Amino acid sequence: MAALNHQFRLASRPAGMVGREHFEYVEEAIPDLRDGQALVEVLYISLDPAMRGWMNEGRSYVPPVAIGEVMRAGTVGRVIDSRSDKLAVGAHVSSWLGVQEYAVADADALIEIDPELAPLPTYLGALGMPGMTAYFGLLDVGAAKEGETVLISAAAGAVGSVAGQIAKLKGCRVVGIAGGPEKCGWITGELGFDAAIDYKHEDVGRALRQHCPEGINVYFDNVGGEILDAALARLARGARVVICGAISQYNNIDSMRGPSNYMSLLVNRARMQGFVVIDYLSRYPEAMREMAGWISDGRLIAREDVVEGFEAFPDALAKLFAGENTGKLVLRLADEAAADQA
Amino acid sequence: MAALNHQFRLASRPAGMVGREHFEYVEEAIPDLRDGQALVEVLYISLDPAMRGWMNEGRSYVPPVAIGEVMRAGTVGRVIDSRSDKLAVGAHVSSWLGVQEYAVADADALIEIDPELAPLPTYLGALGMPGMTAYFGLLDVGAAKEGETVLISAAAGAVGSVAGQIAKLKGCRVVGIAGGPEKCGWITGELGFDAAIDYKHEDVGRALRQHCPEGINVYFDNVGGEILDAALARLARGARVVICGAISQYNNIDSMRGPSNYMSLLVNRARMQGFVVIDYLSRYPEAMREMAGWISDGRLIAREDVVEGFEAFPDALAKLFAGENTGKLVLRLADEAAADQA
Repeated sequence: MAALNHQFRLASRPAGMVGREHFEYVEEAIPDLRDGQALVEVLYISLDPAMRGWMNEGRSYVPPVAIGEVMRAGTVGRVIDSRSDKLAVGAHVSSWLGVQEYAVADADALIEIDPELAPLPTYLGALGMPGMTAYFGLLDVGAAKEGETVLISAAAGAVGSVAGQIAKLKGCRVVGIAGGPEKCGWITGELGFDAAIDYKHEDVGRALRQHCPEGINVYFDNVGGEILDAALARLARGARVVICGAISQYNNIDSMRGPSNYMSLLVNRARMQGFVVIDYLSRYPEAMREMAGWISDGRLIAREDVVEGFEAFPDALAKLFAGENTGKLVLRLADEAAADQA
Repeated sequence: MAALNHQFRLASRPAGMVGREHFEYVEEAIPDLRDGQALVEVLYISLDPAMRGWMNEGRSYVPPVAIGEVMRAGTVGRVIDSRSDKLAVGAHVSSWLGVQEYAVADADALIEIDPELAPLPTYLGALGMPGMTAYFGLLDVGAAKEGETVLISAAAGAVGSVAGQIAKLKGCRVVGIAGGPEKCGWITGELGFDAAIDYKHEDVGRALRQHCPEGINVYFDNVGGEILDAALARLARGARVVICGAISQYNNIDSMRGPSNYMSLLVNRARMQGFVVIDYLSRYPEAMREMAGWISDGRLIAREDVVEGFEAFPDALAKLFAGENTGKLVLRLADEAAADQA
C-alpha cells in the first residue's frame, strides 16, 4: 500500500473553459481511521458534466466545491482497511470520495457494490448517477410512452446513450444527436437508435424535419444552446422537454444563451421541466434492478470510455467538455486497478 | 340601421411594431342573410396581445390572418336581423366577428350572453377569453395552491388582473408586476394584491427578493423578456412557470429573446408550461359560473379600459402594446352602443 495520497484540489474558479490551472495537485499522508470508518483505495473516478457547475460560486442544487477542497467526484473503490463491522477489507464500494487516490470515510457513506453483477466502471455509468439520470429523466420527468418519438442530445454520452436505449426498450422511436460519424454510427448500429443526426456536419433543424416528421414528443436535453432551440421548433402537441443539462453552455464566459424558441411551449401546449436525480434516491433500487436485468440480458449496452492514470484527471475533464468521449467517461487509477486484479 | 359596413382588413404583415399602415379601412355593403344566419351589429371589439401573433405568417396555434382578410377579433354585439330560430332580434351575442361594424354569421357561431348578469364588455374580459385564460392558466396549468406565492406580470392587464384576484380568492400570497405607480396602486389597493413591483421604476430582481423571500411557487408570465429571467432567478423548489404570453417580445424585429436563466428549472426541479385557452372550451361553463358568482358578490373586480369609436382601432392596438391600458382594453363602437341603449 502506498503511504501517500494524491489529490486534485480546486485552486480557482474558472471563468470559461476549465483547465489544469484551476486545480492544485497535492501530496499528503493518508489519514488514520477512526471507529466506524473505512479506508478506500479509489479505482475509478467519474468525470461528469455537472462537475463544471460545482466549480462555480453561488447557489445551485448542491453547494459549490470550496477553494482548496478536494474536487468532488463519484468514485468506485476497494476497502483496504476497516474499523467498521459493516464493511470488510476487500469489499467494493461506490461513493463520492472526490478526485484522490485514497480516502477515509464513514462506512455509512459507502455503498457496497457487486463486481460479479457488472464491471466496476459500470457503477459510475449505466448503474450509477448517469444511468439513474437517464432512467428517471426519461420515464418520470419525460413520461415517454410507447409509440412516441424521443429525441436525445449528447446521445453518445453517458446519460444520452442509456436514455436512448431505455426509450427503445419502452417501444419509442428514438432519434439521437451526436458529434461526428463515429458516434452516430455507434448509436444507430450497436445501440439500435432509429436515426442519428451529426450536429457537426448536418443542419440540425433540417434533419429534425426529416427524422421527426410527426414532431418530437419527448426531448431529453443534455446540451442547451442551438440544439435546444432547434428541438423546440419541432415539438409535437403536448411535448415534454426534459432539462437534464446544458453542456454546450457550461463553459460560457458570457451569460447563458436562453432558448429563443421557448414560445413553442405555448403553441404546442408543451412543458419544459428540470430535475435533479438525487431526488429519486429512494427509487434507485427499483431502477437498478431493472437496468441490471437489461444489462445481463444484453439488451442494454453499457460502454465506458476509460482514461488511464490519476494525473490525467484535468485532461480527461477537458476531453469531456470537448465532446470527445463515447459512452461514460471514467478515469482508471492504473496501478490500483492492477492491484485489485492481483 | 346603417346601410354600409366598415372594416379594418390586414394590409401587410408588420416586421416590428404594428401601426395603422398595416390595415386597410374598407367600406362595403352589408351582405344578405341566408337561412340559419343572423346579422349582428358589433357593439364592442376586443383588443388582445394575441392579435399581434395572428398578423405574422407561419404556423401557430391558429392560422394567421390572411392579407386582405378582416382582422380577427373577439366581439360582443346585438342581433338586428335573423333567419334562425335560435336567435331572436335583440339578443346579445359573443363571437369572433372581427374588426368590423356589422357581420353576418351562422347562428351556431354566436353565443348568446345575458346583459343582466354582467355589463357587455365584461364578456370580452373577465367572462371572456382573458378571464378563461387567467382561470385555467392559474389553476390548471399553474396548479396554484393555498399558501403559495404567486407572481403575475402584466398584472394590471386583462388576464393578469383577473389571475391575481383568483389567486387571492384561492388563498395565495400574490405579487404583481406592472408599469407605473397608477397601475401598481390599483392592483394593491382595489384588487387586493399583497405587493406590487413597478418594473419601470424598480429593479425587478431586487424587488422579487424583497417580496418573495421564500421564492416564487407559481409565475404567471404574460411578458417574457427580462422579467421572465428575473422571475426564473427567484423560483422556489418545484415551481411552475405558466407561459401565457410574451408581450414584451411580440413586436421585436430581431428574434425573440430566450430566458437565459432557464437552468433554474433544473436547479429548482421546476417546470415551464405553455397552454392555449381554447383547449379548455368544454370547461368554460364551469369557470364562467364560478367567475360570474365572484363578480356578482363583488369579490372579483372586472375593469375595462374603453376606447371610443371604430376608427380608433389601430391606435387602440398601439396603446395595448405600449402598455397604456389598465384592465381589459375594448373598443366601443359609439353610435351602435347608443342605439343599443335606446
